Amino acid sequence: MSGARSAIDIAAAVRSGRESAVAIARATLADIAARDPALNAFTRILEARALADAARVDAVVAAGGDPGPLAGVPFATKDLFDVAGEVTTAGSAIRADAPPAAEDAPIVATLAAAGAVLVGTTVMDEFAYGFATENAHHGRTLNPHDRERLAGGSSGGSAAAVAAGLVPLSLGSDTNGSIRVPASLCGIHGLRPTQGGAPGRHGSFPFVAAFDTVGPFTRTAAEMALVHDVLTGATADPAEGLRVGRLTGWFEANADPAMLAGVAAIGAALGGSSPVELPEAARCRAAAFLISACEAGNLHLPTLRTDALGYDPAVRDRLIAGALTPAAIYLQAQRFRAWARERMHDLFDRFDLLLAPAVVGPAPRIADGTILVDGKPVPARANLGLYTQPLTLLGVPVLAVPLRRPGALPLGIQLIAAPGREGLLMAVARRLEAEGVTGYSAPARA
Amino acid sequence: MSGARSAIDIAAAVRSGRESAVAIARATLADIAARDPALNAFTRILEARALADAARVDAVVAAGGDPGPLAGVPFATKDLFDVAGEVTTAGSAIRADAPPAAEDAPIVATLAAAGAVLVGTTVMDEFAYGFATENAHHGRTLNPHDRERLAGGSSGGSAAAVAAGLVPLSLGSDTNGSIRVPASLCGIHGLRPTQGGAPGRHGSFPFVAAFDTVGPFTRTAAEMALVHDVLTGATADPAEGLRVGRLTGWFEANADPAMLAGVAAIGAALGGSSPVELPEAARCRAAAFLISACEAGNLHLPTLRTDALGYDPAVRDRLIAGALTPAAIYLQAQRFRAWARERMHDLFDRFDLLLAPAVVGPAPRIADGTILVDGKPVPARANLGLYTQPLTLLGVPVLAVPLRRPGALPLGIQLIAAPGREGLLMAVARRLEAEGVTGYSAPARA
Repeated sequence: MSGARSAIDIAAAVRSGRESAVAIARATLADIAARDPALNAFTRILEARALADAARVDAVVAAGGDPGPLAGVPFATKDLFDVAGEVTTAGSAIRADAPPAAEDAPIVATLAAAGAVLVGTTVMDEFAYGFATENAHHGRTLNPHDRERLAGGSSGGSAAAVAAGLVPLSLGSDTNGSIRVPASLCGIHGLRPTQGGAPGRHGSFPFVAAFDTVGPFTRTAAEMALVHDVLTGATADPAEGLRVGRLTGWFEANADPAMLAGVAAIGAALGGSSPVELPEAARCRAAAFLISACEAGNLHLPTLRTDALGYDPAVRDRLIAGALTPAAIYLQAQRFRAWARERMHDLFDRFDLLLAPAVVGPAPRIADGTILVDGKPVPARANLGLYTQPLTLLGVPVLAVPLRRPGALPLGIQLIAAPGREGLLMAVARRLEAEGVTGYSAPARA
Repeated sequence: MSGARSAIDIAAAVRSGRESAVAIARATLADIAARDPALNAFTRILEARALADAARVDAVVAAGGDPGPLAGVPFATKDLFDVAGEVTTAGSAIRADAPPAAEDAPIVATLAAAGAVLVGTTVMDEFAYGFATENAHHGRTLNPHDRERLAGGSSGGSAAAVAAGLVPLSLGSDTNGSIRVPASLCGIHGLRPTQGGAPGRHGSFPFVAAFDTVGPFTRTAAEMALVHDVLTGATADPAEGLRVGRLTGWFEANADPAMLAGVAAIGAALGGSSPVELPEAARCRAAAFLISACEAGNLHLPTLRTDALGYDPAVRDRLIAGALTPAAIYLQAQRFRAWARERMHDLFDRFDLLLAPAVVGPAPRIADGTILVDGKPVPARANLGLYTQPLTLLGVPVLAVPLRRPGALPLGIQLIAAPGREGLLMAVARRLEAEGVTGYSAPARA
């Protein structure tokens, strides 16, 4: 179970020559082969590439060179990142015959250049349109903490692979919550970076031009900070003397009491927090929903015209509805977005950090397939983003961190900062992890 | 007929104290009262304001102060600019009971601060949605060169007032051609500035957020350059050694031969021109049409829901259709726009200045109400922008200049530059005017 070791330990061992990257890659591949069938996190194992990349790392070490800060660290990518020589399926059977990617997506290439070793691609909701990682072609990814529960989505395969200890690092994409939701349900760290910032989304299959971001999953905050530095060269942003706000109203109404207790505990650990309301949070979510449907509908319309039946039915209907939504409604959502971003700037004049639950509660049971919103069961696949979508509209960076709850199902909290302040999120998460307020707990049966 | 004097002459006379701004204002108001009923260019005469502003200018001169470079110059504004204390009707009866504007639009305030004297507001197509200046509430503005012909629109009142010599200066707005079309049909200079540049559109009633611009009309290029300097403080951009392109294809297909001869003559006067095609010009126009309809439909939807019958029928139907256009189509037009702007940047790597007809030919007869496109008569109101709309999509500055044709109906040519290069357009227009290739001719009967 090499993947259960931290990226920091692996890189230190490989860089010093104490361990071979090839040996770590072989162990990782064997572990995935043995344990993934029970989770269904992976769509493809890239054995040849992994062994070749690992051998290159070992050769650099043997030659006395610098193999990079992630030397020998195995990682997985959601199946919407370009990987040289592989078809970027975006979770869809429609793309099975698409030409293979000519080169790695820049974010993949950056990790590989830092010595990380790509071992496989992971299951996602088709075209990233869902919060459940239930895929008509690749099946459903199960939650490593309880295989009768959802892993969350759409980057659920990547989150489950890390949570189960198959790899210490993976990549996902977050449009409306597709990193934050599975990170929370699986009990790990997941970063949605600033919209339009680094790392860039070039080389990833698009979903919603206005909102798409790409980012990493790790078990610990320390690993997340290391990976973030590799991806962006970001500098530290001290987590002292912070003005911390707890989002109220919309972000409390449907939350599990343990979630709200967790938010309060994080606030207390940071020296106290003040309640604050995000103006028009419900409309923020509605606008994100509408813009997503319209832009994704536009993106897919040419294919829907020729191959509608090739789509996952749950995705097809949303795309068609989005494409046909009146332009006046789309434009009103964009107008509202401009207004909401102004209000968000006002909030960040008063606060450095905002806190909110990432999801309403622990991972839903697969047999239910629903969550309760205002007392009524609604489909989990479309509604798990209740607390993540309003923040998507604002373009802010958000780090989902797991409350420390050994033996209990994971709960994730969103740490929210002003655009560009990922460094602050890293510092806060490391501090919370050091104080034991947040932290990864291994699944009981993994 | 004080308005028939140039703004430069008037300002020189007033600044030197040789003439009184009040006397000029009185003469202008009397001239408008006598001659405008035959043209219907004005919706409101602002006598009290004009006399008070003129008196202030005279007082500054009497006190030995600087009354500004436009001292005593009478001007008119399209009825969509805020004028302190007046309702901004945007040409619509729906807005008759709207609250009066609290202050002048910045562009109006800038002219007034330079000593110009606002004398009235002018007729336009309702909400600027048309190229004909035929308004269900305020009537039709007639072309000063031939009262049986259209003045063009939507800023037709402002263009006709200048062409008729009622005022030497007026303001219009250009979304899809609403300055360039009436400038061409009335035989004067009209500037569509760079989209998003100076002067800003704040304080003007909006139409299409993506495309709206505001700019001046003058009879001569020398006056246009003076006004442009007042509005933007722009510096000169020499018109020597220019690489000049003549737009072919779309911009030739339906043009009157005299238009194409005029384009060639301008090219020759500038040292020669090369033919060049604007890629996908027809799609550029279609995209501008679609984006305009959708954004205007969104803007008006709340009012359409409560007061649809209050709209001019020709405007109402277009707004409703725009509001209901599928979002996927709007988004595709925006995608195409991004592509087209890249191609435009390529063009301006090769050329400093592009030339194209502004309209297909001289002003259409009102009795016809049509122009010929591909041999078929189509409504002038919606189609006079055939050559202006593709350029709208690109965001470039365009100066419409009148070919020198004394005794004949006016024809206008578009001088097109890269974004921000209005200074070049001014220099070129002054050179062409000095060489007698372009130039205003007074209407025979005005």
